Amino acid sequence: MTSIESKFKALGTDNAPGQEVRSTAGDVSRLMVGEPIHGTFVDFSHGDVDAFVPTPGAFERFQDGVEAGGRQAYTEYRGSATIRDEVAARLATFTGASVSSEDGLIITPGTQGALFLAMASVIAADDKVAIVQPDYFANRKIVEFLGGRILPVQLDYFTSEGRAGFDVEQLREAFDAGAKVLVFSNPNNPTGAVYSSKEIHEIAQVAGEYGATVVVDQLYSRLLYSDAEYTHLRAQDVDGEHVVTIMGPSKTESLSGYRLGVAFGSKHIISRMEKLQAIVSLRAPGYSQAVLRTWFNEPMGWMAERIRLHESIRDDLLRIFREARLNVRKPQAGSYLFPQLPALRVRTLDFVRLLRLQADVTVTPGSEFSPHTAGSIRLNFSQDPVAAAAAARRIVEMTSRYQT
Amino acid sequence: MTSIESKFKALGTDNAPGQEVRSTAGDVSRLMVGEPIHGTFVDFSHGDVDAFVPTPGAFERFQDGVEAGGRQAYTEYRGSATIRDEVAARLATFTGASVSSEDGLIITPGTQGALFLAMASVIAADDKVAIVQPDYFANRKIVEFLGGRILPVQLDYFTSEGRAGFDVEQLREAFDAGAKVLVFSNPNNPTGAVYSSKEIHEIAQVAGEYGATVVVDQLYSRLLYSDAEYTHLRAQDVDGEHVVTIMGPSKTESLSGYRLGVAFGSKHIISRMEKLQAIVSLRAPGYSQAVLRTWFNEPMGWMAERIRLHESIRDDLLRIFREARLNVRKPQAGSYLFPQLPALRVRTLDFVRLLRLQADVTVTPGSEFSPHTAGSIRLNFSQDPVAAAAAARRIVEMTSRYQT
Repeated sequence: MTSIESKFKALGTDNAPGQEVRSTAGDVSRLMVGEPIHGTFVDFSHGDVDAFVPTPGAFERFQDGVEAGGRQAYTEYRGSATIRDEVAARLATFTGASVSSEDGLIITPGTQGALFLAMASVIAADDKVAIVQPDYFANRKIVEFLGGRILPVQLDYFTSEGRAGFDVEQLREAFDAGAKVLVFSNPNNPTGAVYSSKEIHEIAQVAGEYGATVVVDQLYSRLLYSDAEYTHLRAQDVDGEHVVTIMGPSKTESLSGYRLGVAFGSKHIISRMEKLQAIVSLRAPGYSQAVLRTWFNEPMGWMAERIRLHESIRDDLLRIFREARLNVRKPQAGSYLFPQLPALRVRTLDFVRLLRLQADVTVTPGSEFSPHTAGSIRLNFSQDPVAAAAAARRIVEMTSRYQT
Repeated sequence: MTSIESKFKALGTDNAPGQEVRSTAGDVSRLMVGEPIHGTFVDFSHGDVDAFVPTPGAFERFQDGVEAGGRQAYTEYRGSATIRDEVAARLATFTGASVSSEDGLIITPGTQGALFLAMASVIAADDKVAIVQPDYFANRKIVEFLGGRILPVQLDYFTSEGRAGFDVEQLREAFDAGAKVLVFSNPNNPTGAVYSSKEIHEIAQVAGEYGATVVVDQLYSRLLYSDAEYTHLRAQDVDGEHVVTIMGPSKTESLSGYRLGVAFGSKHIISRMEKLQAIVSLRAPGYSQAVLRTWFNEPMGWMAERIRLHESIRDDLLRIFREARLNVRKPQAGSYLFPQLPALRVRTLDFVRLLRLQADVTVTPGSEFSPHTAGSIRLNFSQDPVAAAAAARRIVEMTSRYQT
């Protein structure tokens, strides 16, 4: 097998969220136990932007962008200067540390775009990279695509109270073994764990000791529940040139259809990201960039209400899963639940397919996030509350049917 | 210097089209000869979408996409199945060979996105790649970013009549030297040369002999002037699994602000491209994808009129440059002119900066397209006709001022 064949063989998307329609896995109907359990189909692989609609005014700002014409269609590769000005100021306030709109921020096609560009700007072939397990599946895949080598740091997310369960000694070992980069999401995807202030301070300190670069994906850092305290790594005692923070309005704000993300912080990394963006996609969609004017600028009370509704769904689903004695961490932020399934008589990947076939539910298998979480499933609970609760009950019923 | 530092050092964007605002080059005012020659500022680095506006109905299709909600925001990574169906059928008609909407087409964030994904799907570190010179600047940069090695094939675009000036023997030499991939644009960017039927047949035959993969960027293949005949490589006697064709509606159709492109052909390469898109940008902007419904579906006569207007500007600018005895090929397609400047008393890069400073004109230096064309400049003449002609006259006046 050539190196490029093996590279793409490793880069699977068959079980990635949203790709279920392309699943070519064999027929699982022969494994089916009992009759179908029908209900309103719920796709937990991503949030339902029909249940939680885009930020008010988003479409109107897009329309303004179209009407502005050429200057909005053809921005600098790093994005429109005036929009960068607005967003940089708001992100500085939010994160508690200054952001240079001139040199310290780039607008990208989605947070995914920001993550790829940031990682490709600091990871070369054979570089060692510390990656948290479990964490967003693309972290691992991007390292592999770039030819880097993963040094995993386990997250002990079940037994940790008031913290994520990050083991800074494992991070130190990864740095000792030669890692120069740490990539992690906070809040953690898929568990919804929020890193404690102590954990973030430890990461800042150890990364500083080793001169390591940290890429922190804060995509869900606005959707914080009532018991959560959030610490921004970039506002701690860190070398700002060694930290890149990634955010975007695709999730909490339901603006995924516009493909917008940002990366901010280290000027030399942002500069590299722009060079790379020039050959990867040129720029974030020009007219869409104007939609960022709504970001951190939502109508009064809108975000609080969105958080309240999500917290209520979180609590409903937690109750359903816990009554069924499924092991699941209570998320402090974001819209993911990551329950561990009991031992089943079918493989988890087949159980996930059976959920679609038999119970009108799509979830993402835990193997996407870590080799150690293959027995878990991820649910994005940004859904219609009634439909989501009914679907969670179907998952519970399916679990009991297939339990060994 | 680490490998990643040198990689990004090579990946310059300072002279890339659209980035002039970030140019940090020294003050060229001390080189200035004579007074400023003011006029309506013309940015020839890209087309003016205020002069040639987006396809009628584009915005309305976008609005339909927003109203469709979640199913339009979250498509498969390769793009919405129903939109792929529509586009595949039209591209099959246009190119004269079938396109599989299921497995043979991917929608990407811009043609740039398609080019990066296609090249990254077939080029690994140390692979040799045949690249035409001059050609679209990103071809070279993408190969370099992927760690590949460029084997150039020169285009003799000045002396060729009725053909592009492609030397198939040089291609054979590149394949003999180990290249397994050829990347080229047809119509050629920056010269506007269209490959003759004989040239395309020769490329098809030699690539077939060597089992090489061909990535052909046909971005401008709809904007053909009255003297042009166009031959689609994919409709010739080729192994379809070894050919990827790239197009998009960003140029002729002025839809760049929506960031849309497509790649079609080889199923195994399209499959790799989707895997890669999943970690690079997830998908082309969901709502924007709906704008593709206008593509190859424009109002009757709209495209013919757009071509007629561009042909008229081409002829005006050609006349102005030729009267000044500048060496310039007459483009058969697209909206680029690539005149060669006479020997100047300043470096071409400084002359380009002086054009901005002194003559209200932005152009792209020829060094972006080939090391052998550093004495040429590229103009995208998709501009207001009157402003473009006046700007071309200012370029001529500047040329005579700075001529040695």
